[in-house]
Amino acid sequence: MNIPVQSARPLRVAVVGATGAVGVEIRKCLEESGLPLGEVRLLASPRSAGQKVPFAGGELVVQALDENSFHGIDYALFSAGSGISRQYAPLAVAAGAVVIDNSSAFRMEEAIPLVVPEVNPQAIPARPGVIANPNCVAIIATVPLAALDRRHRIHRLNIATYQASSGAGAAAMEELRASTAAYLAGEAYPPRVMKHPYAFNLFSHDAGINPDTGYNGEEEKVVEETRKILSRPDLAISITCMRVPVLRAHTMAISVEFEEVVSPEQVKALLADAPGVRLVDDWAANHFPMPNEASGQGDVLVGRIRRDIGDPSGRSVALLLAGDQLLKGAALNAVQILQRLVG
Amino acid sequence: MNIPVQSARPLRVAVVGATGAVGVEIRKCLEESGLPLGEVRLLASPRSAGQKVPFAGGELVVQALDENSFHGIDYALFSAGSGISRQYAPLAVAAGAVVIDNSSAFRMEEAIPLVVPEVNPQAIPARPGVIANPNCVAIIATVPLAALDRRHRIHRLNIATYQASSGAGAAAMEELRASTAAYLAGEAYPPRVMKHPYAFNLFSHDAGINPDTGYNGEEEKVVEETRKILSRPDLAISITCMRVPVLRAHTMAISVEFEEVVSPEQVKALLADAPGVRLVDDWAANHFPMPNEASGQGDVLVGRIRRDIGDPSGRSVALLLAGDQLLKGAALNAVQILQRLVG
Repeated sequence: MNIPVQSARPLRVAVVGATGAVGVEIRKCLEESGLPLGEVRLLASPRSAGQKVPFAGGELVVQALDENSFHGIDYALFSAGSGISRQYAPLAVAAGAVVIDNSSAFRMEEAIPLVVPEVNPQAIPARPGVIANPNCVAIIATVPLAALDRRHRIHRLNIATYQASSGAGAAAMEELRASTAAYLAGEAYPPRVMKHPYAFNLFSHDAGINPDTGYNGEEEKVVEETRKILSRPDLAISITCMRVPVLRAHTMAISVEFEEVVSPEQVKALLADAPGVRLVDDWAANHFPMPNEASGQGDVLVGRIRRDIGDPSGRSVALLLAGDQLLKGAALNAVQILQRLVG
Repeated sequence: MNIPVQSARPLRVAVVGATGAVGVEIRKCLEESGLPLGEVRLLASPRSAGQKVPFAGGELVVQALDENSFHGIDYALFSAGSGISRQYAPLAVAAGAVVIDNSSAFRMEEAIPLVVPEVNPQAIPARPGVIANPNCVAIIATVPLAALDRRHRIHRLNIATYQASSGAGAAAMEELRASTAAYLAGEAYPPRVMKHPYAFNLFSHDAGINPDTGYNGEEEKVVEETRKILSRPDLAISITCMRVPVLRAHTMAISVEFEEVVSPEQVKALLADAPGVRLVDDWAANHFPMPNEASGQGDVLVGRIRRDIGDPSGRSVALLLAGDQLLKGAALNAVQILQRLVG
């Protein structure tokens, strides 16, 4: 992540939601970004204000977010939920900041770019206001899929997810730990953050179900955002989003149906050269993408690249992905957008 | 499971692998079966011989398996791995017993019936020798799928599994518990039973990969056995088998492509009447099949029944299944086969 930047003017950056699961990772990504940081202003709810956090060898004090928080800020990275983004992002833009928003508030607005830097950097306009950071599943999926779609047009996707607790925030991660400890101790643990018991259990993603279609809000986001990021508004996508008892990296089983016959070897060769992708595909050692190896690093791991035997046409290739939900699925992608803006 | 049986002659039943994860459940299923049990002979490795286990209010002593173990036995339920089945099942048959074999040793032999009682009871011959109990994923999947295929012919399946530790045996279940406890305590836990760290982690099923196809042995079993059970030798099946940190029930996301347009409502109506199936499909409460609710009971839970939006033809319906791997996926199915034989 130490990409040298051309601008030397110290940047004034605000982080909204600085104490949340993603906020913590944004701080680390900023530290490691190589960006010439002048001021880093950490903003959070009044409850967290006054907290001191280490940053780049020094210490920063978390401030309460209010309407005057963006004075003098060049870039504001939001990760405090859609409500906060809707309320404060317009104020940040009005104060002269460019907003990189990790919430879903603006993602599907036509005028708002939805950006994965490896995939569609051209979507960033010359004078941006708000840039939306996509849903974590959509980011992790599109990094390798875009590299394939550029060369061999994708006809249809079939995606099953294995999503970590981190996508539901720090409290969900803690609930997974605490409820599992209680289970092992033979103690009861009524769910507080999630709708269902989480210890050694899994469940359909608990975003609300659209009564017209039976799809949950997470699945709808992944479908819509993947289409927007890939500029493929009509791409057919089958999807099931599941929450599994894993802490912080998302895994996905994907079958990619191309418009023409494409071999697993061609897919593998394209992915070997794709930015942001690392092949983990050792058949002999049974070593494939796993959340424990995806966690704490920025690449999307890809493996189990094989002919989809369920499609006799030979146009489908199956693969398995894993990526860190908090890093490439959220904080790192946001900071990479910032690097593109600055560089 | 209290199905009254017509035969009143006390049955002499042997359980091979009586102290393993499945063996323990076979004992419980026999106790609850309502079958007129005369002798129950528990057989295991010499290491387990002499163990006393409670059974039906009394106590049984585990005996070491040897070539004379089947004298006087009517039915022998094997669950001790393919090697033991290959070695001892022929001896049991020679001694006059009918073998119900939970291993994969004989499943794909043409002359051996592979039986899920709700699906293909007609496969049981009048004078059986060995009857194979299918792979756990194949059993759990075919219970609802057969009910659909009987009415609307299935053209293709796309399956992603979320498989519990129990499929790898009692030692794997213990490794999941112990490695998770170590993780929570901040201690290292090198994998012993599984190939990969299991605490809050998941991985591609660790059966060996076929170097010609990229599919692992579990996926090959599910494809071949599903075709055999459904009598659909050419059925197209896409599959990814994954091991997740769940103790004992398997979950599956399945897209069913029919040969004609079938509505989710038609699918739901058929499944509501299907034996061995329980609908868990509450959209408003976000309540769908989960391993914690599938565990310890015999039905296959089915929900998230919706149009697969990734198939514009309207011929595909997506659904989610969960079933207890140790019960319907193994022990219960074996005892249900025994009930059919006796009844």
